[in-house]
Amino acid sequence: MASLSNHALPSGPLREPELHALAADALAALGLRREDALDAARILVLADLLGIHTHGVSRIEGYGERLALGGIHARPDIRVERVGGAVARVDGDNGLGPLVGMRALEAAMAMARESGTGVVFARASNHFGPVAPYNYIAAAEGFASIIGSNATTTIAPTGGRQARLGNSPIGFGIPNPAGPPIILDMAVSVVARAKIRESLKRGESIPDTWATDKEGNPTTDPGAALEGFLQPIGGYKGYGLALIVDLFAGLLSGAAYLTHVQSWSAAPELPQDLGHFFILIDSRRLGSSSWLAERVDDFAAILRATPRSDAATPVRLPGEIEVAALERQGREGIAIDPAVREGLVRIAERR
Amino acid sequence: MASLSNHALPSGPLREPELHALAADALAALGLRREDALDAARILVLADLLGIHTHGVSRIEGYGERLALGGIHARPDIRVERVGGAVARVDGDNGLGPLVGMRALEAAMAMARESGTGVVFARASNHFGPVAPYNYIAAAEGFASIIGSNATTTIAPTGGRQARLGNSPIGFGIPNPAGPPIILDMAVSVVARAKIRESLKRGESIPDTWATDKEGNPTTDPGAALEGFLQPIGGYKGYGLALIVDLFAGLLSGAAYLTHVQSWSAAPELPQDLGHFFILIDSRRLGSSSWLAERVDDFAAILRATPRSDAATPVRLPGEIEVAALERQGREGIAIDPAVREGLVRIAERR
Repeated sequence: MASLSNHALPSGPLREPELHALAADALAALGLRREDALDAARILVLADLLGIHTHGVSRIEGYGERLALGGIHARPDIRVERVGGAVARVDGDNGLGPLVGMRALEAAMAMARESGTGVVFARASNHFGPVAPYNYIAAAEGFASIIGSNATTTIAPTGGRQARLGNSPIGFGIPNPAGPPIILDMAVSVVARAKIRESLKRGESIPDTWATDKEGNPTTDPGAALEGFLQPIGGYKGYGLALIVDLFAGLLSGAAYLTHVQSWSAAPELPQDLGHFFILIDSRRLGSSSWLAERVDDFAAILRATPRSDAATPVRLPGEIEVAALERQGREGIAIDPAVREGLVRIAERR
Repeated sequence: MASLSNHALPSGPLREPELHALAADALAALGLRREDALDAARILVLADLLGIHTHGVSRIEGYGERLALGGIHARPDIRVERVGGAVARVDGDNGLGPLVGMRALEAAMAMARESGTGVVFARASNHFGPVAPYNYIAAAEGFASIIGSNATTTIAPTGGRQARLGNSPIGFGIPNPAGPPIILDMAVSVVARAKIRESLKRGESIPDTWATDKEGNPTTDPGAALEGFLQPIGGYKGYGLALIVDLFAGLLSGAAYLTHVQSWSAAPELPQDLGHFFILIDSRRLGSSSWLAERVDDFAAILRATPRSDAATPVRLPGEIEVAALERQGREGIAIDPAVREGLVRIAERR
């Protein structure tokens, strides 16, 4: 297979097409078909463009380990089964998450173009990256979206002291024909585990709202918190949200859910059977482009004009920082950790 | 118009059909068409059945004040406009919220029966009651649902010190062919204002996560909190959720949004122009009844079996308490505050 990219690239930020080619070459070297590698790479590069580097091309090395162990199929037979005029089920055949995610998103967009809305449930999938890139692609095509995935268990239900729920991500997107879309991509925990690890390193205590110890009691000790569970936002409300995301992404999709989801780290050779859901709505059915653009502009302006608690800190909209990063990195190139980049070159040239 | 009910009812709990007839008579006496009164009453009685008495038939008196002022149309011309195979817009013509809500839900169910999913955006509506009754009706008919409404502004955006967002409710429902559905109906604030008023009455301070003072700074003083703003769950995450609900319910629907929503109390004679959204998915397209029942049963069992933090407190599922109240009150009758009941009889007999 001919390489798409010259990997002897100049140092410094990479242009989007360069990073896309490098990521796709790496995925192809790991066994993916060229077309699949390009599609999966699109999601990961978009994550990096949005500044979400923890969930971007840096994940390819980990995906590779799992592909090598047979825990993910490099060349899955992904099947889209239409079960209603505007509903489809996708069997990911244990393919790479961002690849299954892209195929599901494409199916949802196709139905939404036809019927005004499209709903897709995907099963037999894997970690599909962050949600924001899917919301972003949908918004760029004029679709409002609600998209979610389940995940390995890290959260205890309210009143429980054992992880039975994933810190399941859910993302929402609203298109804006005349400017940046509004995108909210969130997990239901108050903070990510990484933030607790940082506090531990610095020897600092943490707010008692972040996590519980292993008995399920709130703790300010980051060490105890790392042995315990992340706390969901708003207590039972966040627990409820995590559960709902798993019901839509896992239970309704036909995937694994709750403790049935295989751990990424404990059993890398086994299929995770993660599930995702995609709800897309064609905004063009609701009004003209100028109607929508005016309303989104007015909506954003009302929020930004709110008198500030702290004069130096602006009131922001969700996704504002990410979309600004995308625009800036689209112009100036994408800042990729040199070690990640070297790792990708190594994988891409391994063939 | 002939009365449906004999209002000289025995004291004590009312059977569902009795309360439904009384509520419908009251709404008809306020000027609604008989059929519309029955449909709107169904939502409110269902709220009471679920134990959500603050949002049930007790609201009829307040609705009546607004109907009398012309702030709500008693006999609206509600129009359903199909804008895609599975998408409709509803113009509520400033009708009573639970009536517009029922018409929108019916439209969404009809499309979901046809296409597997149905999405409805309603505008020119009013306070439509709690969300749970709509999720419950949808679940009873086999539909998974995501339903939301916007609301009068009570929440400041993160970093702001002026209310620009409603404490918008969102509800999720998952049908269960062999048992109670799973329903999560939540607002995005940590607590309701009523809970802060209770603390003030008791002279107690409140956790600093509940509300801010009028400058947007967290406060433990319930008096200052009542002059300030409710805090959303998880800080910027809850702010983001409130904003997303308003984008779907208000902006995409063509209704008012953010500060454009008229206050219920400050301008009772003006239309609020609230908006709602309904996303329904026919679970029967995804698998058989026994498939779904087994999975929901297993899902609930996994959560309930979680080792407890406190041995005396069970791990619950969202909506469990409400659905148990519905089953109990369905058998034993609905406990209605005698003053509320007398008020309804007074309104119903006013004709």
